[in-house]
Amino acid sequence: MSSSKNPNNSNDEVVEEVINVPNEIHSVSLPQEKSTSQKLKHKLSEVFFPDDPFHQFKNKGYKTKFILGIQFFFPILQWLPKYRFDVFKFDLVAGLTIASLAIPQGISYAKLAELPPIIGLYSSFVPPIIYAVLGSSKHLGVGTVSIASLVLGSMLSEVVSPTNDPQLFLKLAFTATFFAGLFQASLGFFRLGFIIDFLSKATLIGFTAGAAIIVSLQQLKDLLGIVHFTTKMQMVPVLSSVFSNRHEWSWQTIIMGICFLAIMLTARQISIKKPKLFWISAAAPLTSVIISTLLVFCLKSTNFNIPKVGKLPKGLNPPSVKMLCFDSAYIALAAKTGLITGILSLTEGIAVGRTFASMENYQVDGNKEMMAIGMMNIVGSCTSCYVTTGAFSRSAVNHNAGAKSAFSNIVMAVAVLITLLFLMPLFYYTPNVVLGAIIITAVIGLVDCRAAYRLWKVDKLDFIACLCSFLGVLFISVPTGLAVAIGISVFKVLLHITRPNIVIMGKISRTQIFQSIERYKNATRIPAFLIIGVEAPIYFANSTYLQERILRSVREEEDRIEASKEPELKCVVLDLTAVTAIDTSGIVTICELAKIIRTKSVQLALVNPVASVVEKLNKSKALDQFSSNNGLYMTIGEAILDIKASWKA
Amino acid sequence: MSSSKNPNNSNDEVVEEVINVPNEIHSVSLPQEKSTSQKLKHKLSEVFFPDDPFHQFKNKGYKTKFILGIQFFFPILQWLPKYRFDVFKFDLVAGLTIASLAIPQGISYAKLAELPPIIGLYSSFVPPIIYAVLGSSKHLGVGTVSIASLVLGSMLSEVVSPTNDPQLFLKLAFTATFFAGLFQASLGFFRLGFIIDFLSKATLIGFTAGAAIIVSLQQLKDLLGIVHFTTKMQMVPVLSSVFSNRHEWSWQTIIMGICFLAIMLTARQISIKKPKLFWISAAAPLTSVIISTLLVFCLKSTNFNIPKVGKLPKGLNPPSVKMLCFDSAYIALAAKTGLITGILSLTEGIAVGRTFASMENYQVDGNKEMMAIGMMNIVGSCTSCYVTTGAFSRSAVNHNAGAKSAFSNIVMAVAVLITLLFLMPLFYYTPNVVLGAIIITAVIGLVDCRAAYRLWKVDKLDFIACLCSFLGVLFISVPTGLAVAIGISVFKVLLHITRPNIVIMGKISRTQIFQSIERYKNATRIPAFLIIGVEAPIYFANSTYLQERILRSVREEEDRIEASKEPELKCVVLDLTAVTAIDTSGIVTICELAKIIRTKSVQLALVNPVASVVEKLNKSKALDQFSSNNGLYMTIGEAILDIKASWKA
Repeated sequence: MSSSKNPNNSNDEVVEEVINVPNEIHSVSLPQEKSTSQKLKHKLSEVFFPDDPFHQFKNKGYKTKFILGIQFFFPILQWLPKYRFDVFKFDLVAGLTIASLAIPQGISYAKLAELPPIIGLYSSFVPPIIYAVLGSSKHLGVGTVSIASLVLGSMLSEVVSPTNDPQLFLKLAFTATFFAGLFQASLGFFRLGFIIDFLSKATLIGFTAGAAIIVSLQQLKDLLGIVHFTTKMQMVPVLSSVFSNRHEWSWQTIIMGICFLAIMLTARQISIKKPKLFWISAAAPLTSVIISTLLVFCLKSTNFNIPKVGKLPKGLNPPSVKMLCFDSAYIALAAKTGLITGILSLTEGIAVGRTFASMENYQVDGNKEMMAIGMMNIVGSCTSCYVTTGAFSRSAVNHNAGAKSAFSNIVMAVAVLITLLFLMPLFYYTPNVVLGAIIITAVIGLVDCRAAYRLWKVDKLDFIACLCSFLGVLFISVPTGLAVAIGISVFKVLLHITRPNIVIMGKISRTQIFQSIERYKNATRIPAFLIIGVEAPIYFANSTYLQERILRSVREEEDRIEASKEPELKCVVLDLTAVTAIDTSGIVTICELAKIIRTKSVQLALVNPVASVVEKLNKSKALDQFSSNNGLYMTIGEAILDIKASWKA
Repeated sequence: MSSSKNPNNSNDEVVEEVINVPNEIHSVSLPQEKSTSQKLKHKLSEVFFPDDPFHQFKNKGYKTKFILGIQFFFPILQWLPKYRFDVFKFDLVAGLTIASLAIPQGISYAKLAELPPIIGLYSSFVPPIIYAVLGSSKHLGVGTVSIASLVLGSMLSEVVSPTNDPQLFLKLAFTATFFAGLFQASLGFFRLGFIIDFLSKATLIGFTAGAAIIVSLQQLKDLLGIVHFTTKMQMVPVLSSVFSNRHEWSWQTIIMGICFLAIMLTARQISIKKPKLFWISAAAPLTSVIISTLLVFCLKSTNFNIPKVGKLPKGLNPPSVKMLCFDSAYIALAAKTGLITGILSLTEGIAVGRTFASMENYQVDGNKEMMAIGMMNIVGSCTSCYVTTGAFSRSAVNHNAGAKSAFSNIVMAVAVLITLLFLMPLFYYTPNVVLGAIIITAVIGLVDCRAAYRLWKVDKLDFIACLCSFLGVLFISVPTGLAVAIGISVFKVLLHITRPNIVIMGKISRTQIFQSIERYKNATRIPAFLIIGVEAPIYFANSTYLQERILRSVREEEDRIEASKEPELKCVVLDLTAVTAIDTSGIVTICELAKIIRTKSVQLALVNPVASVVEKLNKSKALDQFSSNNGLYMTIGEAILDIKASWKA
């Protein structure tokens, strides 16, 4: 099938008028024969190693390979030997800045997850060190994040009460963290990172906005000083809990909350308007904590009653391996919670890593990042930490503060270490209301209305996906919102497959270019030919549709020809350039179409099928029923030339 | 953007060498601006009315429109007025032939569904008449089918015992039938027929084979004369039930079973080998029933103890509207059973209708067929019938016996009517073992090894889908098998989307054709250019992959250039012809790619995006970062020509 032939009548005038250039008909070649195992190997390598991660190992000696291998798994060995003092200065400043953010946020997020506040600080000590050793991003600020904290707390507290059985709750939190890490590391190790791609950007925008609103509403508990609050997560019970407990509202708390919220939001606005003043918003939380703590301490002898953080234990992370609980009664809960928080935190971590890598023009390897984040959580679960990842706000501060390498995470860890060892008693008088204000300030930026508007403008279906995941999180639950988001994303793909586009094509005058006649006014139909471009793979899910749709186009073309008294239709040309795959149902459809069209005394020709399509058409003997040239042509122009020539003959 | 321009240097020799024909650069045009509501309208009409079912109503007077409308909903009004006696002769023979098949099969399948045998005969009387009025297929033989019967019986008997509470079981069977009909009719009415397309041919081959084996194994109960048999459906409990009850095996039953099975299988083989002798296999079941009944009747006074059908009530279908049970305790079960049997029977009915329509070169309208089958089941559920559809074996016999119109169904209904009115007592002595043999003979043909082998040869993934649904039905359960089948089909689509193919393209000498250099040996690279064809829509699910994969191709090209000392890479051309859609993640990827490639001092150009892609690229301002010509070209040749010209300038 790979030779080319020369039709005798290339000088024929009529043909020349239509196509005035080619004098050769190129045959469509079959792709090289490959065995099943070769194909499988190629397919697997494309699925699991698309970026060819081992390309740097090629053509190297064993020793170099060994060193590269070690560096591959421990990226710190790549950059630490070359690390210099002038870079360290930047990392020191950045590390101290994110530490000032990490300490109040750690305490706040732990409370969001219904865990003892100290766990939040522990989680800002071990994981950053692990990440600095294993991670490949230079700007990721590692620590606890709002959404994963919220989901962890709410999913576990549906089964175990954090107030009645805090010990079991803590155990389950560590176990869930362990599962989250295991899941993340396995995704990376087995190179299944593409699974998180199914959380499309559009659905994530809606999802994070919904979660941010839920998190903010939950903070009304602390901001209003309510004691009896729902443990539920949906908008309706939270709001009704706020208003039904109006008698518990405390004016002292409310005033304090509003003041500090105003301060921090103002600081945030300043930093947004002038990115150089990023340190104002970065320093605001710690400053607020210090001022409010002093305030409460000074007022302690008065009647001023405001909920406080209370006593926090001094000292380093205690080991928690023995607290991992694989009891059959709770393992399913822990695994499910771990899976969902794992996906969520991984998505955030990878997205953050990619964002800053793209800004600074370096590459992060998604699968390696997953292993790093996973290891960080596995080790974390054994050292009294709960789920951590690369946090967006903290990474942004890290980046703005001038961080140059993952060393800033080590600086942060050291700062947290010092806090843990010596400064814990200082938090005794810190009021909860300030922590609530810190959380609200942190999550408010996650509601990205402008991005949602952009979605609406560019892609309505993406906007609907965004909206549904937003409403799903807000009114049903976080896991449901997540499921809805993924469902809609997949549905969108399937809808495109189920109802693909087909276009009627014409020739642009004085060229051999064939384009949609609807889109290009200078493209004209060729008499007696109907050229149809199919813009989708032909699958079971659309084969019936395509058959009906193409037959309808043929019918409409015949009606049009009858009305305009043009020469009658003699050939339908299917341009398969954009048919990127075909399955057995699709092959049946092609055969069926050829058969039905033949009963109308019209010929069918196929143009430019891609390698896998022509291979399958050939194997299934579908082409045997076509007469000349197997009905296959490389270009539309050649098809028309050859078919016209065959009519003359 | 829709004008064309003429670069000054079209006479330049170097450019001429590469592209020796075009002297114009065509701009890529934006599709016509459409409002959101216009787009929505177009999309909805493509989703729901792809075949433009109302095209025959166009440009007609009101009276004609009215008559066409009535005929549209009642196809019988189209063909009955023109019906003539010479056609009736054929339909009479065909109708009597399928009646001789329908009567024993009706009794057998009702037993398979754990229903009283008489229900099977009722189901062969009313539904065929309804179908003759509403249906558009000329060859569909309507009646009960094995798989839907099996699924109905097994799903209901998981909750309600057919022996302990036969009345409730019967009620639920009618209710499930009602739901099945409602579901089928709604699918047709709301033109959602494409939903059944998700049961791809490949998975159906596996599914029916699995179900046929389960059905056959269940018949071992009757064939061996076992009294205590499992109600479960999976292979393992059925086989263990057969062998653990070995003491119940009855040699008389076994001998009789083997004899009649041998007779019917031989008849089947003869009819397969010589299609003209189709009547041998068509007549075999009724003949076997008559002979075996006579035999049992003659031996009734001896000690010969064999399970019999027993007393059947005489008379027409009693109304069963009052038996429909919408009790909240059972409505979920009935609805679920109805949904699954509805999908299964609908898939069979539509596939059968299409097969024979294709054989005889007429069209059936899928959505209209669904309404007909749905109405048939809704009416059936009110007249003591259970789920019916177009049965494959019966339709084949109908077709072979020479049926010319749906009138053969009316003939069959009349024959069943006579049986119901006068012949019921004759079935008293019919042995169950013959019914089991009839079922086995009927379903054995559903195991289509040859089709499975063809799948293996043409499309390995289709074969895996087929195998999984086969094993799912056999070892887990019918609904699970169905779910697995759909899951794998969808997974296959997603896999194609997640890991699309990209090809490196080159120019075929003395033409303007660009093709894969791997596939076409005469296609050569153009120095300083890397031309990449992307063969998939760019979606959230593959945007990360495509970015990595394209960057890898660029890296590999640079390595190759370095090794072969060719001119360095200056431009990457992305051929978007086969990129049939893009979403917001995809747009971000294109921007990101352009940015990363630019840092290597390499240019990016996009070629021939389809209408929806260029529209979204334009709306999202993604093209603004491209310098010349918006980076968009209509053909690869023109892109190269223009970019080379710009380098000269």
